[in-house]
Amino acid sequence: MAPPPSTTISPIVMLIVRILTFISLLISVIIIVTNTATSTVATSFGLIDVKIKFSAFYAYRYMLATGVIGMAYTLLQTAFTIFYVTTGNRFGGDGLAFLDFYGDKVFSYMLATGAGAGFGLTVDLNRNDDSADSFLNKANAATSLLLIGFVFSAISSVFSSLSLPKKAV
Amino acid sequence: MAPPPSTTISPIVMLIVRILTFISLLISVIIIVTNTATSTVATSFGLIDVKIKFSAFYAYRYMLATGVIGMAYTLLQTAFTIFYVTTGNRFGGDGLAFLDFYGDKVFSYMLATGAGAGFGLTVDLNRNDDSADSFLNKANAATSLLLIGFVFSAISSVFSSLSLPKKAV
Repeated sequence: MAPPPSTTISPIVMLIVRILTFISLLISVIIIVTNTATSTVATSFGLIDVKIKFSAFYAYRYMLATGVIGMAYTLLQTAFTIFYVTTGNRFGGDGLAFLDFYGDKVFSYMLATGAGAGFGLTVDLNRNDDSADSFLNKANAATSLLLIGFVFSAISSVFSSLSLPKKAV
Repeated sequence: MAPPPSTTISPIVMLIVRILTFISLLISVIIIVTNTATSTVATSFGLIDVKIKFSAFYAYRYMLATGVIGMAYTLLQTAFTIFYVTTGNRFGGDGLAFLDFYGDKVFSYMLATGAGAGFGLTVDLNRNDDSADSFLNKANAATSLLLIGFVFSAISSVFSSLSLPKKAV
């Protein structure tokens, strides 16, 4: 018996994982962008309140960038997977399986570094200042969701590795 | 013609990539552990100099942990690959190919989060205090090497994905 051209992972399961990735990243991005804190600082005008946004920290900017790029990629892959579910054929045939394979690898690694950067900064900021707790808790929530999105994208990466066509190897 | 049981990636290339991973992680770990800074702080005894080590920051501790765990895993895989190079057979046969596949995925993702955490903290610390430049430059060097080690481990992960036996899929 000849081996099948690809694995028997259900396209429905692939689709669900893609959608879960997208939702996790979307919520993460919304939390990052809307997260603000107010800090009282001493200026030459006396004490004034300044608003602190995620963009004050490079790590959160990078996190946002990975989240948005990851969303765009996941949306594209979701469209391909919907095509697969509805027609029963992979979009672009086996030729695109390698693009899936390398794409999933690259973007899931990117999300892993984004989640790492978010936690790397937040965990150590957290010890400095109790007044920023709400801001940092929201940053932690956003990073956790990015981490969850990364885990789902890693599952997609396992699927696309297992789905590599045999002949092209 | 029946498809071959695994890809034609040379075991020598696999071995070289494993060794490069190991060396990058080793140098990274050495730099993290030996990196110290002196900071003058105000105490009830007046101004005294305190020594700051990597362990003062959770992100660097996590980085060290991923580096050390990554080294242990890479060393094991290097031994397996040397076995492959010398005997021409994969250690444990095709059964262990899946262990390689999932192991490489997990550990390369772990290194990606470690590198992310290191940069996430260092980039934002860097803006605060010029006196800590030497410490943070060394931290950046260590994180860069961890990132290089991650890239090599990602290459190993691509190899182990492509080397998955066909029959077991």
